[in-house]
Amino acid sequence: MKELTTAPVGSPSTFLNFPLALDLDALAADIAILGIPYGLPYHVNERANDQSLAPDALRQASVDVDYTVNHFDWDLCGPLLAGKDVRIVDCGNVTTVLGDDEEHYRRAEAAARRILDGGATLISIGGDHGIPIPVMRALERNEKITLVHIDAHLDWRHEINGVTEGYSSPIRRASEMDWFGDIIQIGIRGIGSAREAEVADARAYGADIITAYELEDIGMQAVLDRIPDGGPYYLTIDADGIDPTIMPAVMAPTPGGLSWRETHKLIHGLVNKGRVLGMDLVEIAPSYDVRNLTMIYAERLICNFIGATVRAGYYD
Amino acid sequence: MKELTTAPVGSPSTFLNFPLALDLDALAADIAILGIPYGLPYHVNERANDQSLAPDALRQASVDVDYTVNHFDWDLCGPLLAGKDVRIVDCGNVTTVLGDDEEHYRRAEAAARRILDGGATLISIGGDHGIPIPVMRALERNEKITLVHIDAHLDWRHEINGVTEGYSSPIRRASEMDWFGDIIQIGIRGIGSAREAEVADARAYGADIITAYELEDIGMQAVLDRIPDGGPYYLTIDADGIDPTIMPAVMAPTPGGLSWRETHKLIHGLVNKGRVLGMDLVEIAPSYDVRNLTMIYAERLICNFIGATVRAGYYD
Amino acid sequence: MKELTTAPVGSPSTFLNFPLALDLDALAADIAILGIPYGLPYHVNERANDQSLAPDALRQASVDVDYTVNHFDWDLCGPLLAGKDVRIVDCGNVTTVLGDDEEHYRRAEAAARRILDGGATLISIGGDHGIPIPVMRALERNEKITLVHIDAHLDWRHEINGVTEGYSSPIRRASEMDWFGDIIQIGIRGIGSAREAEVADARAYGADIITAYELEDIGMQAVLDRIPDGGPYYLTIDADGIDPTIMPAVMAPTPGGLSWRETHKLIHGLVNKGRVLGMDLVEIAPSYDVRNLTMIYAERLICNFIGATVRAGYYD
Amino acid sequence: MKELTTAPVGSPSTFLNFPLALDLDALAADIAILGIPYGLPYHVNERANDQSLAPDALRQASVDVDYTVNHFDWDLCGPLLAGKDVRIVDCGNVTTVLGDDEEHYRRAEAAARRILDGGATLISIGGDHGIPIPVMRALERNEKITLVHIDAHLDWRHEINGVTEGYSSPIRRASEMDWFGDIIQIGIRGIGSAREAEVADARAYGADIITAYELEDIGMQAVLDRIPDGGPYYLTIDADGIDPTIMPAVMAPTPGGLSWRETHKLIHGLVNKGRVLGMDLVEIAPSYDVRNLTMIYAERLICNFIGATVRAGYYD
Amino acid sequence: MKELTTAPVGSPSTFLNFPLALDLDALAADIAILGIPYGLPYHVNERANDQSLAPDALRQASVDVDYTVNHFDWDLCGPLLAGKDVRIVDCGNVTTVLGDDEEHYRRAEAAARRILDGGATLISIGGDHGIPIPVMRALERNEKITLVHIDAHLDWRHEINGVTEGYSSPIRRASEMDWFGDIIQIGIRGIGSAREAEVADARAYGADIITAYELEDIGMQAVLDRIPDGGPYYLTIDADGIDPTIMPAVMAPTPGGLSWRETHKLIHGLVNKGRVLGMDLVEIAPSYDVRNLTMIYAERLICNFIGATVRAGYYD
Amino acid sequence: MKELTTAPVGSPSTFLNFPLALDLDALAADIAILGIPYGLPYHVNERANDQSLAPDALRQASVDVDYTVNHFDWDLCGPLLAGKDVRIVDCGNVTTVLGDDEEHYRRAEAAARRILDGGATLISIGGDHGIPIPVMRALERNEKITLVHIDAHLDWRHEINGVTEGYSSPIRRASEMDWFGDIIQIGIRGIGSAREAEVADARAYGADIITAYELEDIGMQAVLDRIPDGGPYYLTIDADGIDPTIMPAVMAPTPGGLSWRETHKLIHGLVNKGRVLGMDLVEIAPSYDVRNLTMIYAERLICNFIGATVRAGYYD
Repeated sequence: MKELTTAPVGSPSTFLNFPLALDLDALAADIAILGIPYGLPYHVNERANDQSLAPDALRQASVDVDYTVNHFDWDLCGPLLAGKDVRIVDCGNVTTVLGDDEEHYRRAEAAARRILDGGATLISIGGDHGIPIPVMRALERNEKITLVHIDAHLDWRHEINGVTEGYSSPIRRASEMDWFGDIIQIGIRGIGSAREAEVADARAYGADIITAYELEDIGMQAVLDRIPDGGPYYLTIDADGIDPTIMPAVMAPTPGGLSWRETHKLIHGLVNKGRVLGMDLVEIAPSYDVRNLTMIYAERLICNFIGATVRAGYYD
Repeated sequence: MKELTTAPVGSPSTFLNFPLALDLDALAADIAILGIPYGLPYHVNERANDQSLAPDALRQASVDVDYTVNHFDWDLCGPLLAGKDVRIVDCGNVTTVLGDDEEHYRRAEAAARRILDGGATLISIGGDHGIPIPVMRALERNEKITLVHIDAHLDWRHEINGVTEGYSSPIRRASEMDWFGDIIQIGIRGIGSAREAEVADARAYGADIITAYELEDIGMQAVLDRIPDGGPYYLTIDADGIDPTIMPAVMAPTPGGLSWRETHKLIHGLVNKGRVLGMDLVEIAPSYDVRNLTMIYAERLICNFIGATVRAGYYD
Repeated sequence: MKELTTAPVGSPSTFLNFPLALDLDALAADIAILGIPYGLPYHVNERANDQSLAPDALRQASVDVDYTVNHFDWDLCGPLLAGKDVRIVDCGNVTTVLGDDEEHYRRAEAAARRILDGGATLISIGGDHGIPIPVMRALERNEKITLVHIDAHLDWRHEINGVTEGYSSPIRRASEMDWFGDIIQIGIRGIGSAREAEVADARAYGADIITAYELEDIGMQAVLDRIPDGGPYYLTIDADGIDPTIMPAVMAPTPGGLSWRETHKLIHGLVNKGRVLGMDLVEIAPSYDVRNLTMIYAERLICNFIGATVRAGYYD
Repeated sequence: MKELTTAPVGSPSTFLNFPLALDLDALAADIAILGIPYGLPYHVNERANDQSLAPDALRQASVDVDYTVNHFDWDLCGPLLAGKDVRIVDCGNVTTVLGDDEEHYRRAEAAARRILDGGATLISIGGDHGIPIPVMRALERNEKITLVHIDAHLDWRHEINGVTEGYSSPIRRASEMDWFGDIIQIGIRGIGSAREAEVADARAYGADIITAYELEDIGMQAVLDRIPDGGPYYLTIDADGIDPTIMPAVMAPTPGGLSWRETHKLIHGLVNKGRVLGMDLVEIAPSYDVRNLTMIYAERLICNFIGATVRAGYYD
Repeated sequence: MKELTTAPVGSPSTFLNFPLALDLDALAADIAILGIPYGLPYHVNERANDQSLAPDALRQASVDVDYTVNHFDWDLCGPLLAGKDVRIVDCGNVTTVLGDDEEHYRRAEAAARRILDGGATLISIGGDHGIPIPVMRALERNEKITLVHIDAHLDWRHEINGVTEGYSSPIRRASEMDWFGDIIQIGIRGIGSAREAEVADARAYGADIITAYELEDIGMQAVLDRIPDGGPYYLTIDADGIDPTIMPAVMAPTPGGLSWRETHKLIHGLVNKGRVLGMDLVEIAPSYDVRNLTMIYAERLICNFIGATVRAGYYD
Repeated sequence: MKELTTAPVGSPSTFLNFPLALDLDALAADIAILGIPYGLPYHVNERANDQSLAPDALRQASVDVDYTVNHFDWDLCGPLLAGKDVRIVDCGNVTTVLGDDEEHYRRAEAAARRILDGGATLISIGGDHGIPIPVMRALERNEKITLVHIDAHLDWRHEINGVTEGYSSPIRRASEMDWFGDIIQIGIRGIGSAREAEVADARAYGADIITAYELEDIGMQAVLDRIPDGGPYYLTIDADGIDPTIMPAVMAPTPGGLSWRETHKLIHGLVNKGRVLGMDLVEIAPSYDVRNLTMIYAERLICNFIGATVRAGYYD
């Protein structure tokens, strides 16, 4: 069923010009990139949002694959793929139908299942923070996954305006899936949609909430040490978890977020603690960028994740 | 049924700070302003569009009512209301429900009917060019209305992606309503969604299509003279009919549009030829404005329409 | 008394790099440029306004004098000075003292008197539309001057907040000076601070008010023909009289203003009808410019005025 | 005497939509917000400055009170008011009269006295750094206040152009008031109006000047430890004390300022060391903002101050 | 010799996605589009200029070919190709070698000769106004071509800094080629590099110089009537000949240029007077665009030229 | 031979308005500033690049010398020159000739030799990172210089497109000069033109490569400690070595660069370890600045370098 995803437009039309792979049933990949543009809206004026432009904007902002693959990357201390034969594909964007918002989620889950079932590491690009919900559902398995969540916000709302799978709910939804165990939430700060009840729920569940201020006091290495060893892990990154001076293209810029050096340490540290099954990068609103910085940081973030998994021997 | 419309936000929250009137059943007004934010999307990424921001953006850009009502307006050669007792209200924005795109049109039609049935002149602010469709349906009557249409595009498509009441179809939809007779389309130029079949249909109907180039050659007075006398009229203005140097905040800027002086002559000339039942101003995309010019021109356009109707004795 | 004016800063520091002449008592010039930055404020938040930045901004935006003086100017059909020996100086900016707003006007009038008494044509750069008041006072003489006024607004207010010499009053103030006779006001449109009483006063005085719409209908040559022959003239140009698409850097952009071709015809036509004693260009708010267009147009406007006076034999 | 302050305009018109309280004699508040737009100018072109736009710009940028008061704020580890009954009002902006610059200071002092005498914590929003002078004068009492000053600049000038209460002098003025004792100046760096004499004066007074570089070396906790315990304190924050990457909307961006995490630690640490009588946030120049970051940080800063005082039991 | 041109990058990579044709020896086309990025610099800081970005920027800004070819274009009163079988190709950009500026011209001439010798109409996209020189050289033939030139500037300089084929010289260079006869220069205004000597030379040659002001007085139809009938013609359009409100992305915006409606009439009128062998559009500096207007106008201009030649039966 | 350099234009036309010194043979200076605008291009579209605008842009952005020299600079804990008699001059910009790219380097080397031979500390402002090559060549001497290099990139490419002295090669070129010994490279991160071979070469040479991540872990003081003591040193700073949030005006913004506080510590630490013969600041692309931050930081960086050398007794 090829129709789950569609080819992106623009130039480059795929992330770093990696090969396009729309036939998910025939997928042969170590790493798969998947655009999931649409969350579930809370209000009519969110039916289409700026974040839905991010998958293609990020692809178009990406530099060419020869450069990135063959040149020396000092974030990785070597070329992206470290001379290994690693198969990376871009699976395009999940499709949808007009008038049935949930169908996009169903297709996203189906696409993610195909990719994950084939053994590939999945890199999902949102879209808002609702889109990890179908991805996390596709991660269904008989072992417990540790969820690592970078965000300014807690995202434990049960529902808003009757919608239970919108961008304020992904961590609560994960907490309800049997295959998620420990939850670590990093960079939390400022105000979001959470009220005291949600905070109580998160704490009752056992979520390890590390505010930006605690992070400042203890350092990222200590944060890494608090994440249970072994894995497997899933990493969900809300762009507003990163500091708005370096990722300004978000809807809710909040002071005090992760620096790039902190982010770099987290990604490499986590990938080396155990298998990270996939990651997503969500809530980039391209129209609000300043000097293209958000896009540059986003590409670096994804390349660091790819390069770290390669070096950790995921595909050997 | 007050719930048809809701109060706008921002400051000013109503156009020129005219009184807010949400109880449409109890409406007592000569002129009513109505925001209709949402058209029917052709693609999922049009579910919310920039044009839906226009009603409130236009209100917030409007200057204060004391200034506008009491000072001398040289576009009108006197104060806005010419010293007469004219009741102008802002009825707020038509509401909708999440997940049922057509409901917004149903409410728009209901709101417009209430306003028009009360005898008020209706000024609708879009939204895209789909929103005149429910308004024109609400104009149902036993006499023929002459439709005057300012646009770069013909808007005679029957359907796109199965949607028959989207922004490419309003003039065809009008042509199918028994209460519309002559159709005059002014400022047409460049390329739109029309193919040769639609042009043939428009011509078969008898639409008088006056391109921007013919307008340049004959002048706006000659255009006015070609509009059948007597009325009643309905005036629908797509912002991209106006030249993009003066209304840059549109999705499809097209060179050669109406100048302000041409627009001024058309509005005053039409209002004096006969009763104009209402007008709409659609397809303003506020995010794309330059130096706030589009908003300034939009306010002038509406004030000229109001002032012209007052001077033509509509409310005496 | 050299202290009436001070050297501008920036680069170029004088208009077109013409020589700086601060010693007004020793002035030997055919044409003198004078910056007058400060009007009289109506509100505390107008104590300094963006228009006060215009004299130096306009100088800094001007191209070099060699280019402008020696190259062929098609607006003039020849080089700026037509090969004649014409002395042009920049007298810098009128000074002021902190805490006495009126002192700036007193110095502006004194500076203008020295320049005009020496026989030079005076080109004043504002500042807001209050600054022509001291200039017009300095024009005191025993003959009647015809005032030609380009503006969107009438500027006949007697006072606002007790201030009688602010930017809404210059034409009324001129009407009270014995040495002004006919007043022609061109490009009037939209709403300003005028109420019906002021319009009545202007009409009672005999002001010939030519709206932008009448100008469109009759053309600029007919406007020129309506200006009484012979002179002398004084020309005051509010930048918002020009269309905001070509001079966007104004506080009150108003659609329908003079095009450049209309402006060109007016300047050359007027200068050739009789002696124009001086002109001012006011109400440019540099911070609001788009693509530097306002500054480019302003320089062209002044160069056309200079070149026209040279060709009309003013300095032979 | 209600006329000391006036209602702000815009939407929201008060900070976070807290209730407006213009009758200062009848004030019943725990925390009062006060806009003081105008400093004393050194030059005529500073008579009105961009900073005077900050009080209303900051209010209009603030999010709604329901959200801020009821949702969980991770900067505070709970809702803004921690479930307590704390009365917060916005007292509007201090008024002035045209032509008497000092009158604004007299009214600011009178307004501040009324607020402080009623026992409320005062949050003043400038305006430039002259505006704390009347506020600090209103703090007159029989105990010594410790002044904590965040800034890039020293602000110990005695006078400039004869003006002794302008934006370069507030700390020297405080040093002359009997009711100020210890002075701690944090984040000092780069060049300002200070010469060696002023630095000598500050040091002779005993001011504890902590440059940004010393702060980097010792950390904010050590800075807090150096502030004498007990209080009472007054906190004056020049926005250019904060790093210009996070508060770009200042007149003199200077590299190396306080990070948000440092600012957060300082505010909470200080409020918990003893009673902070009030704070001001000055020198925001809204026109220079980038991606609205300055406004977002300013709101966070004030909310952190409010929330910290609530948690420290100031109003129990 | 395929190496004369190279494939453009970006998306779309060809104008309107027309087929790419790099093998000029095997060219089978009715209309060929050719990018010529580099002129000959006068100064070292012009070695690469913003205009060299225009060919690809214009291609990337162009809309898709299906839309443009199949939809009804009201500028043409029908679809672009009027249902005819017309072969349009994009030949990419002329190549060059580092360190030999003239080689680019040699290749441009060679490429243009191959295209023209094959009978195709050539549409060249600059680059600055030097690039028509090799194109015009490639037009060599035994009949006289009438040169129609739209520009603010005269472009009759013999040399600047020793360079004789730079952007100030194309019309003089044309005047020296035996195969150019009448020269009509339209829209001339303001100041350029011309001095009186060059104007004298142009007039001595017999160039018909029609300033923007004469155009305003007589109208474009009269201008068309003054162009000798019969052809063949070559049309060179400097973007600054068009009014800067509609084509702001030029290095020397000059008020009073051609309106779109005037441009439309000129293109269609000229194409119908006789065979136009080719046209170029030069001096677009993409970095200076406002709201993408220049790019939109440029595409319209080229489509109008294409559509006009199709309707005039050039390829029947 | 005065013609090696030429006076900059603009205002101020020299850095901080220091005296202009074009006669390099008669130079009597302790510190000399030299603009070197042009590198050697790799591609034709780099023949002139945005970086070539930086020397004059940086001068024009600099504040006045009185302010900077006489006021107290907290980065230095005293006035810039610490009351000493230090002679600082601006030698203008190195000239070139059209059509011979290497001549600019030859003149740059000649100018640098004259300045350095006279004993002055040389501050070079690029231009791209090719321009230190002639400067480093002019440093020829019989002792080993330690090269300290701040950059995101390694810059060890031998050649690109046949060009061996372009912006990717300065450190390799230095490694080949007998007078350079130890090389320390700080802030390296992300991807550049280096491949594994170049990294191997750099390591074989013994370059001490300190990535941004190692810097984060060990701190700048430890970095300083790793730089061999004694000197002499040469400091080359690529603006993209600094974090793009504080120096956004670079061609390749790369996350994780040096903070200002780190930069401050490095400059002062290095200058005090031994004699720094000169420094350069390259790769600023002024057109890409945000809120003028890059220019402000650049000026601070140079002033800190000047002030540090003064305090270290270089000129006593």
